[in-house]
Amino acid sequence: MNKNHCLIDALLRRPVPRTPVWFMRQAGRYLPEYRKVREQAGSFMNLCTNPELACEVTLQPLRRFRLDAAILFSDILTIPDAMGLGLSFAEGEGPRFARPLRHAADIENLPIPDPETELRYVTDAVRLIRRELAGKAPLIGFAGSPWTLATYMVEGRGSRDFKQVKKMLYDAPDLMATLLDKLSIAVADYLNAQIGAGVQAVMIFDTWGGMLTTEDYLNFSLKAAEKVRQRLQTAQAGQTVPVILFTKGGGQWLEAMAQAGFDGLGLDWTCDIRLARQRVGWQVALQGNLDPVALYASPATIRRKVGSILEGFGEGSGHVFNLGHGISPDVDPAHVEAMVEAVHELSPKFHSSM
Amino acid sequence: MNKNHCLIDALLRRPVPRTPVWFMRQAGRYLPEYRKVREQAGSFMNLCTNPELACEVTLQPLRRFRLDAAILFSDILTIPDAMGLGLSFAEGEGPRFARPLRHAADIENLPIPDPETELRYVTDAVRLIRRELAGKAPLIGFAGSPWTLATYMVEGRGSRDFKQVKKMLYDAPDLMATLLDKLSIAVADYLNAQIGAGVQAVMIFDTWGGMLTTEDYLNFSLKAAEKVRQRLQTAQAGQTVPVILFTKGGGQWLEAMAQAGFDGLGLDWTCDIRLARQRVGWQVALQGNLDPVALYASPATIRRKVGSILEGFGEGSGHVFNLGHGISPDVDPAHVEAMVEAVHELSPKFHSSM
Repeated sequence: MNKNHCLIDALLRRPVPRTPVWFMRQAGRYLPEYRKVREQAGSFMNLCTNPELACEVTLQPLRRFRLDAAILFSDILTIPDAMGLGLSFAEGEGPRFARPLRHAADIENLPIPDPETELRYVTDAVRLIRRELAGKAPLIGFAGSPWTLATYMVEGRGSRDFKQVKKMLYDAPDLMATLLDKLSIAVADYLNAQIGAGVQAVMIFDTWGGMLTTEDYLNFSLKAAEKVRQRLQTAQAGQTVPVILFTKGGGQWLEAMAQAGFDGLGLDWTCDIRLARQRVGWQVALQGNLDPVALYASPATIRRKVGSILEGFGEGSGHVFNLGHGISPDVDPAHVEAMVEAVHELSPKFHSSM
Repeated sequence: MNKNHCLIDALLRRPVPRTPVWFMRQAGRYLPEYRKVREQAGSFMNLCTNPELACEVTLQPLRRFRLDAAILFSDILTIPDAMGLGLSFAEGEGPRFARPLRHAADIENLPIPDPETELRYVTDAVRLIRRELAGKAPLIGFAGSPWTLATYMVEGRGSRDFKQVKKMLYDAPDLMATLLDKLSIAVADYLNAQIGAGVQAVMIFDTWGGMLTTEDYLNFSLKAAEKVRQRLQTAQAGQTVPVILFTKGGGQWLEAMAQAGFDGLGLDWTCDIRLARQRVGWQVALQGNLDPVALYASPATIRRKVGSILEGFGEGSGHVFNLGHGISPDVDPAHVEAMVEAVHELSPKFHSSM
């Protein structure tokens, strides 16, 4: 069905002819063609909720670069929005919820959305993108991790210190566990709906797991992500849908993540991928991890850094090349091209045994 | 000379009757008496450059809490200011430099300040604070790490992505090495002047080391901090002046830091202090690491979290209790008291062998 199965094979640690490459926020503001559609949509949420426009921006980076995957254009906050918290994006200000969770009753009364009805615009987009992709590359679906969603839902917006959500975690750990349990179900149902509609790999973004103490990361964030994993229906028509967990700032906890049942772990740029591979062995694939800020450097520097990451991972399958965090909005697309082409040119020698 | 040598003893891993406690930004905005002096000073820099006022705010937290150290009230950006970059603090905006470093010539022409003349207000404050402390508690001096200073000097202000400074690091690593070499000398000279004036321990704040890749952290930030360490004159009148390195976000690199010649390592709150101690053994003391956001929780929760950190470190000397990052400006001083008292009450049992 897929003409390019390099990504899925690498995530399942099957032999590949070269290292697959895609990158976080590849459908985004650094592309002039994205900015044009974004303007046409009027607002960020209009773009997310319009399957045709979401499909268009999902496909844009694949027209420019030799990428091995498309990733659904959407936002991690679609779930809390469907739960009734009232999401809005004020221009230049980031997300806001009109009704953040502050009391036990808010959490007890929180409904778990039915994705096929309440998040239909997402599954519609998935079906449309799969049709348009026509097997040229696999489509990755995604969701925010339960903990990361909880941070926005309790704070009501982005935060730097996570004062409200940590106060709940510290003073009312049982209530936080209840919230994370609900979110684990909601996230799993949502990802299952994306899988049902056609995504061929899924990624859980734990953007704020790295703000926790080790103990709380393991007992709350990772535990909730593991519950999502257990509920996922990853066997689809004879194919396995690989599951990737990315915890920004999670470099101290790779061993625990590797034992939590995921197929791949996303590494941020602070991790040394050579040491990471030594630490997790062959339990999981590794995805990453060029510093996104390296894309401001010269194409020659970018090529050297790509080579050093490929060499760090070393021989064999199980590496998906990516940035260590989302691309910045003002990066020159020519520098992205230098990164992608470097992976194509430099990676085959690490797969010579195929 | 000191009536309270608990901090120095713990940093040098000599037996202590209980775990010493102080905390980052203990002289700061969460104290109403600080806000009063700050208002009187007119501006933050006026407060830093006036030895009498700096002395007053340094001593304030010791009047309220049973702390085992005072820390000089100052700012890490005094060095680049003395180098002629033109520091200012716009209200509510953070630091700005009028003349950031952008070209090779800026770096080659950068003067190394003579602290006893150009940063005289700092050594005057140290002498005054020592006199006022009268041996009641030791005084800690500090400086920013070369890398952390470089981030502000190249960016010209605080940054989230460190685009300019990383561009220099990636495209012109030799130029960055030159800058860090100069800063290593300037920082060491500055700390030596503080030691000469009377500080009894010194701490290097590497606030932004954790934004680097592992390779660049080791080859640039840690290497420069090590050069500072090697240049320090830590033998003073028969006493050893212990040196602490704190790298926020540095939890992945503790082994390398422990081998770099420091007496103590500061841990941020994401590190598990039990695992940290297993990783570094008895090579260094460990300082930390309560999540500063835990101070918004109830006093009972704070006490439990303090107990769990003390137990994590376990038996024996070599632990200095602290927050895992600076205290937030709106914390209730009563919650600080709960933390400090918990250390006094719960820590003696871990030192029973004395």
